Amino acid sequence: MNIDEIQESLRRFAEERDWNRFHSPKNIAMALAVEAAELLENFQWLTEEESRCLAERPEDYQAVREEIADVQVYLLRLADLLGIDLETAIRDKMRQNAEKYPVALAKGNALKYTRLGK
Amino acid sequence: MNIDEIQESLRRFAEERDWNRFHSPKNIAMALAVEAAELLENFQWLTEEESRCLAERPEDYQAVREEIADVQVYLLRLADLLGIDLETAIRDKMRQNAEKYPVALAKGNALKYTRLGK
Amino acid sequence: MNIDEIQESLRRFAEERDWNRFHSPKNIAMALAVEAAELLENFQWLTEEESRCLAERPEDYQAVREEIADVQVYLLRLADLLGIDLETAIRDKMRQNAEKYPVALAKGNALKYTRLGK
Amino acid sequence: MNIDEIQESLRRFAEERDWNRFHSPKNIAMALAVEAAELLENFQWLTEEESRCLAERPEDYQAVREEIADVQVYLLRLADLLGIDLETAIRDKMRQNAEKYPVALAKGNALKYTRLGK
Repeated sequence: MNIDEIQESLRRFAEERDWNRFHSPKNIAMALAVEAAELLENFQWLTEEESRCLAERPEDYQAVREEIADVQVYLLRLADLLGIDLETAIRDKMRQNAEKYPVALAKGNALKYTRLGK
Repeated sequence: MNIDEIQESLRRFAEERDWNRFHSPKNIAMALAVEAAELLENFQWLTEEESRCLAERPEDYQAVREEIADVQVYLLRLADLLGIDLETAIRDKMRQNAEKYPVALAKGNALKYTRLGK
Repeated sequence: MNIDEIQESLRRFAEERDWNRFHSPKNIAMALAVEAAELLENFQWLTEEESRCLAERPEDYQAVREEIADVQVYLLRLADLLGIDLETAIRDKMRQNAEKYPVALAKGNALKYTRLGK
Repeated sequence: MNIDEIQESLRRFAEERDWNRFHSPKNIAMALAVEAAELLENFQWLTEEESRCLAERPEDYQAVREEIADVQVYLLRLADLLGIDLETAIRDKMRQNAEKYPVALAKGNALKYTRLGK
């Protein structure tokens, strides 16, 4: 994914519409949380099993695909507004996670999963 | 960003810890919404102006950087679990947005912004 | 529940701490969404079945009880700030729901459940 | 607010529609988070000042009133499913908050506000 190019395109999109004054990081973080909840909404009455077979429900699958894109768009926008390099941030986080959840302790344990994270 | 490589690495991370049975799309969508709210939490008592100058608060800035990474990690994981190509999904969405919010109508109008989206 | 008395007490709590300038409805709605996600976090790696037996996990049960209280506190505060009578608002909504989801159509159908709501 | 009566009415509503199998605490916590985000959505492009004057926008005001009711309905349902007494839970929490945020420390300080909460 060419992050720079997409962020540049989103920046231009906001400028052309005179939306920068609405695009404070605070507001974009709100918009992102709202989109994450819209994504969640598609799963709320499905069983976990049904969610694993989402592709069998083409309408839901398409809706989820669009909500995933919405979350990604706001995330790219927020990182851009704050001058955060998304790829480096992820790699740093994955390194932290590897230390925080050592295989020996975390293996197959959902509760430890959550608790170790604190 | 090399999405395939990161997704492959996240997949291995879950497998090694025997976490795949917890990683239904339903559960990952929940985890993503939780992380989006943790990101939001950092902005809740800041003014919009303060949020635009977040870099002046190094501790908050670092916290936001980590939460952004958490959201991105779960988003990549979810797209992978569902077999959704993230980059194509974003590009499709950006095309839709350009049609939904024509410059002439959307210019500088926050309310139309929201309302046009419905 | 004596709503007026609790709201009066929350109002005094904010005034004594000089927090009214942080308590715009926008900010309280953010805080409420953050608390709702903290509540959700307690369920994210549980199966639905485990969530039905939450009382068997005293630590999680207590955490959920506190998060439920946090959500309720912000909801009462928001309704108070906006001059919305919570009880009337609920009763109006329940009447709407009864019309929107007639027993004959909604019976046992999770998908219709969601779709009827749109 | 007569909590028992409303909860009894919500219980009957779910039973008549055969929705209890969808109403695991996990799913209701998801639905609650989704409604909290829909509430938030109404504030996302408003300034804090505009949010304080929401009553001047009758359409938004009515939408917020309905979303507040939706959050309250799911909160009552969740408390009922888990056998949590909502009023006692709030009163316990308010007592905790009074200890956690002593007036002398918390006065007018948004950052301490957040940080004290950790």
